[in-house]
Amino acid sequence: MARWEPNARERLERAALALFLEHGYDATTVAEIADRAGLTKSTFFRHFADKREVLFGGQDMLADLFSEAAPSATTAECLAAALDSATAAFTPDRHDLAPQRRAVVAANSELQERELLKRARLSSAMAAALRARGTDDTIARLAAEVGVLAFSTAYARWAAPGNVRPFAEIARAALRDLQASATALGASADVSA
Amino acid sequence: MARWEPNARERLERAALALFLEHGYDATTVAEIADRAGLTKSTFFRHFADKREVLFGGQDMLADLFSEAAPSATTAECLAAALDSATAAFTPDRHDLAPQRRAVVAANSELQERELLKRARLSSAMAAALRARGTDDTIARLAAEVGVLAFSTAYARWAAPGNVRPFAEIARAALRDLQASATALGASADVSA
Repeated sequence: MARWEPNARERLERAALALFLEHGYDATTVAEIADRAGLTKSTFFRHFADKREVLFGGQDMLADLFSEAAPSATTAECLAAALDSATAAFTPDRHDLAPQRRAVVAANSELQERELLKRARLSSAMAAALRARGTDDTIARLAAEVGVLAFSTAYARWAAPGNVRPFAEIARAALRDLQASATALGASADVSA
Repeated sequence: MARWEPNARERLERAALALFLEHGYDATTVAEIADRAGLTKSTFFRHFADKREVLFGGQDMLADLFSEAAPSATTAECLAAALDSATAAFTPDRHDLAPQRRAVVAANSELQERELLKRARLSSAMAAALRARGTDDTIARLAAEVGVLAFSTAYARWAAPGNVRPFAEIARAALRDLQASATALGASADVSA
């Protein structure tokens, strides 16, 4: 029955973002999204659990990527590898979706809370993946926060209007900045006030 | 009309935690909390905006404390000063409330989400306070995450059953651990995978 639809996921995503911007997130139904994309509701549900997942599914993929780093990698290499893997999701042809997604989330306080929760869960998943590799708990938790900060900084810079630099390059630079900041913060080891 | 009630805030907090544990958070009303504390509803509302605030009001106070650090302090000194200021909220006589609060939050997924959101907002407030002091954006965001991690680590250790070490001492140690971890993470400055 279910025939394969080329680019179904991206068509649904584009249709959903357009409708969220036109009519608001709350007022848009899955049926309308599928209809706008020229697909069926059942095709929608093969790709997304619900309409919220259209906006946040990518962050779940990131958490999975992180747990796939090579066993021999250092903690910093794990962060870099996770950011590199994320590159696949941020291709130039998806650049126009980023400001749309941001506008939808910015217009809805429930979605903003969801975004913060997804970030917190991404951080927890990263820390758990690092601990599973035998990383010290404190370093794992700090590295996870650094990873999420690097990712969110890189995403904002990549999504900025007019940006043409590839995500991987931006992400590596963001991670290097954060590592330099970590060194600066760690160097103030005398914390007496 | 409103007469001053000694220790009203703490009495309300203890009554609320006891009722949340006995009957569940959702089933407990403000009227029941006030009644258990031997106070009126209007006294409750002079101390807390709603029953959720009984659990999370402390985190808002922390965000305020952070913006009061001395203008001359370094970023690391700001973190240390904020943790020191928090000490006032974690006195030995409040030690028995911590496991109660944790049990209430752990039993309710909405409260767990609220906890994550409050942590994210605390981090944002810390980063904004540092930026307002002229701290570089990347360092401000990283330092804020380090501050929140230090605080949450210290709180968990302080609240552990049987702990007798004062909060300030635990918090300073947690911050030093995180700074050492930051140094270790920053030292892997070659992030080539």
